[in-house]
This record gives sequence, structure tokens and C-alpha cells, in this order.
Amino acid sequence: MSLPSSVKIVEVGPRDGLQNEKEFVATEVKIDLVNRLSAAGFRNIEAASFVSPKWVPQMADGAQVMAGIERRPGAIYSVLTPNMKGFDGALAAHADEIVIFGAASEAFSQKNINCSIAESIARFEPVARAAKESGLRVRGSISCALGCPYQGDVPVPSVVDVVQRMAALGCDEIDIADTIGVGTPGRTREVFAAVTKVFPREQLSGHFHDTYGQALGNIYAALLEGIEIFHASVAGLGGCPYAKGATGNVATEDVLYLMNGLGIETGIDLEAVVSIGEFISKSIGRANASRAGRALLAKAANAACAS
Amino acid sequence: MSLPSSVKIVEVGPRDGLQNEKEFVATEVKIDLVNRLSAAGFRNIEAASFVSPKWVPQMADGAQVMAGIERRPGAIYSVLTPNMKGFDGALAAHADEIVIFGAASEAFSQKNINCSIAESIARFEPVARAAKESGLRVRGSISCALGCPYQGDVPVPSVVDVVQRMAALGCDEIDIADTIGVGTPGRTREVFAAVTKVFPREQLSGHFHDTYGQALGNIYAALLEGIEIFHASVAGLGGCPYAKGATGNVATEDVLYLMNGLGIETGIDLEAVVSIGEFISKSIGRANASRAGRALLAKAANAACAS
Repeated sequence: MSLPSSVKIVEVGPRDGLQNEKEFVATEVKIDLVNRLSAAGFRNIEAASFVSPKWVPQMADGAQVMAGIERRPGAIYSVLTPNMKGFDGALAAHADEIVIFGAASEAFSQKNINCSIAESIARFEPVARAAKESGLRVRGSISCALGCPYQGDVPVPSVVDVVQRMAALGCDEIDIADTIGVGTPGRTREVFAAVTKVFPREQLSGHFHDTYGQALGNIYAALLEGIEIFHASVAGLGGCPYAKGATGNVATEDVLYLMNGLGIETGIDLEAVVSIGEFISKSIGRANASRAGRALLAKAANAACAS
Repeated sequence: MSLPSSVKIVEVGPRDGLQNEKEFVATEVKIDLVNRLSAAGFRNIEAASFVSPKWVPQMADGAQVMAGIERRPGAIYSVLTPNMKGFDGALAAHADEIVIFGAASEAFSQKNINCSIAESIARFEPVARAAKESGLRVRGSISCALGCPYQGDVPVPSVVDVVQRMAALGCDEIDIADTIGVGTPGRTREVFAAVTKVFPREQLSGHFHDTYGQALGNIYAALLEGIEIFHASVAGLGGCPYAKGATGNVATEDVLYLMNGLGIETGIDLEAVVSIGEFISKSIGRANASRAGRALLAKAANAACAS
């Protein structure tokens, strides 16, 4: 199979990336981040979460963020909605897409939300139905699809089962997420080969974490399976709650560098994203975790010194 | 093509990794590093350089390192030899393999050593001949094979030409090196597909830098082309002289994690390498640049806290 000629990059930094930051990130910084991202060409931005502030205090200002951002024509701003209350918030905030979620690991589901995978997804049925009725896109995100911090291996049929359950809820797009970054290219290909048999390939996305440095290898593997949607987080925002101090989401800059090298269109300006990566890293006092970002910045700095 | 069932990992940390460190690394630390690596299972270690100490002061103690290390049966200790003087040092030190080198980029060759690629490789003819006569293995390393800091693109036929010149000198093994880490998987496959037409695939190696985060994607790409030898540097020792502050050699831990995940045998104990990565990073006061290393250490630390 030949590689796709273009891919859609979903920028998840403002939500998945920032949600684990301990220090509260000012609402204006979050708004500025989203606006800079849309200006750089992103047309899919995970902007906020309408989850209880008791669970995720960092995301308590979702409504203000959504109200404050500039809405670029054609851009899709998605928000996480754990339940009907979250959905009501998303609707009021004029989100374009809601994100519902479930784990592919039974142990993870039981340990984290005290119910089975099947139950947890069934609970999203009213949320997905309400979203459809309101004309919102529904994205389903499947965590632990390549491995679990509790049970270790996650059988491929478990992932296929969750994809089918999410498809039954009417999901427009389904994310295969390597939440803890343990996947390697062989398993990645195996999982995508299996799930593309039960859900349209062009509506499946790869969400990789670089915890063990494997994310770009996995993205290349997914491209070889024809996957055309990838999640990424500017400056590698985000961490791994199961290995504190370790790297989290794959950095958008590294993904764009890969796509540019492969001649795959993204519609996004890498240089602009490198600047945004520096902006947000400095704003929240965090080291820039993008290798491509750091290298391009170092190259520019060296060139400036030499001139 | 199916993936190889086993690969040979050449650990280059003690030479390529340490050579750019500003503070001199004590000879005992270098010896300790090499010994720990051979104990962890490495059978190919780039241990020293017999280059003029005026050029690379960090490698001035090559003879002492080679004299001080424990020689594991079956292990191949290689040293860099830029000329006959270096070769004499390598011979006296009982090196098992010498490394000669050349660039695939004409601009790089002219700028760095003030002569053409063809001239630079021809100068190694007496060194390679002497090595063969003394029963030493000869490895040829081709830098800038996927891109050059001066000329940018390096045409694939230039790489093929250098491989042929190195083959004519009698090289037993030839390294395709992405010295500045700019390569991506498509070009990597193209280069390996071309060079395997003129030199035996099982004697070609991939030497990748993670400067732009692309190394593991490139290694997976090279595996898909049937390459069975890879270079790596424990804890990601090494930098990129053309983008100071950027990441350098791909970390051995990340490569081993990839191979383990793909079910490819290496004969090397990942956990032991993670410990060695911490040992050398702390010894030289440098952040551990291996993502897999950091994640495994963080996981172990979290488990210890929880217990």
C-alpha cells in the first residue's frame, strides 16, 4: 500500500496536553494557544474539556476558553464530554465536535471507573445521541489500545470490540490511543489492520505517546496501514501519569517534520508551530519536549550567532 | 519482506557518544562504561579513537582505555583510525576492528577536510590494506548519507558511489550514517534499497541520530529493507555539532525497546542498559536522553514509592 498523500493532524495540546499540568494555566494563555494554532493552519483542535473541575481542575475554564477563542472558518474545535452535563456545556459553548471515550483494557476500565468496558461505553449512548441530534460531530477515543498499565497486554480483539461499540453509538471518527506509549510498530500495524476491517480506514486516527520513544515509528507504521489522521501535541505537552517524569504525547513538530520528509501534505506551517511550542513551553515553565522543535530552534540560534 | 529475526547492535556511546563532551571524562569512567556494556551483552563496542588529541582531546586516552578494559571473548572492540598513525595505535592496542570514514556530501568533505570525497577515501587505502594484512576487521562509515548541513540534500547515487569506494578498499561492514538526523523513513528506504544493490545487505548498518526525533522511524524503515545492523548510543550520549543543544545519537535503550517489541533478538539486556545509561549520565553530569530509559526508571521509582 502506498502512503497517503495528505493527512489530518488533530492538535490535542490545549486539552490532552495541558490537562495534567499542576499549576493552573491562565485562561488567556489557553485562548492565545488555541488562536495561534488555528493561525498556523490547524483545522482540528482539541480545545477544552467539560469534565467536573473536581476531577480535572486544570480544565475548569472550558466555557471561558471556548467563548474567548477566535473561531476560524472551517476549523473544528472539539471538547471532551464525560456525561450529559458535559455535553450541555459543550453545546452551550458551540463546540463542533464532542469526544467520548473508553478503554480497550478491562483492567483499566474496572480500576479507573469501576465498571466494565461495555458498561462504560453504553453510558455514552445518550451523549452521542444528543450530539447527533444537535448536529455535532462525535469522536470516540479508545485508550490503552496498545497496552495497559495494569493488565499489560491488550488483545487485538478487545480493541476491535470497542471500535464496534463506538461505531454503534454513531461515532464519526475513532481514535486508537496508545495512552502509555508502550506500543511498537508491529503491534500498531496489527491493530490497525484489524480495526480497518470493521470501521472505515479514513475515519480512524492514531493517537501516540512518545513515552518510550516509539511514537514516530508507530506513526510511520500506521501510515503504512493507510491511516490518515494523527493526533499530536505542540512541544510534546502532556505527561504519562503511569510513569511520572516521563515523556507524554508525541510532539506535533516531530510529526510535521516526519510528514514533510515523506512528502505528505498537512496544511500546517512547521516553523509557526515551532514558535508556538516555544511560546507555550515558556508560558508554563516547562522544557520543550519536541526534538524537531529544539533542533530547529538551535539551528536558527547558531545561524544567528554566526551571522 | 519480513523483518529480520535478530539484529546486531553496535554500541557507539564510548566513542561517538563521548567524543563531543567538553569536560574530559576520566579514563576509569570510560573503562568502566565499556566493561558494563560488554557485561550487558554487547558484542560490538566502539571503544576509542586514535585520532590526534589536538583534534579530539576527549579521545586522547584511547590507548589507556583499550589497555584497561576487560576483553570479553567474542566481543569486537572497534576504534576510529583517521590515518596510518592512528592505525599503528589501534594495532598496538589490539583493536579487533578499525573504523575509517568519509562523507557522502561533497560540500561536507570540502568544508571539513578540504578535499573531495574520492580523495578522502583513497587516503584510507594504506590503512585498510594494513588492517587486512594484520587480520583486523575494517568498517567504513559514511557520514551525511541522508542530508548535509552545508548542501542540504545528498543524492542517493552519491551514497552508492561512496559505498562502492569503501567496498573497493575491502570494508567488511559499511555504515550508512544520518549524521545530522535529518532523514525520514521514505529517504531511508530509498537509500538502503539502492546500496543493498551494490554491497551485501547483511554487512550494511544504519547509524541514526535522533536530532529531529526521526531515528526510530528510520530504524523501522531500514528493518523493512532487511537491514540487520544498527548503531546506538547508551543514554543517547552524543550531540549534534550543527545544532548545539539538540539531541544526537539515537539512544540504545529506545532501540532495544523497539526490537523487543518487534520480537527481534539482540542478545542484550535492556534493564542492564537502562542502569548503564543512568550510571554514565550521572558520571558526566548530563541529562539522560533516552525516553525508554527515563520511562522505565520513572516506572520503577513509582512502583517503589507505591510499595
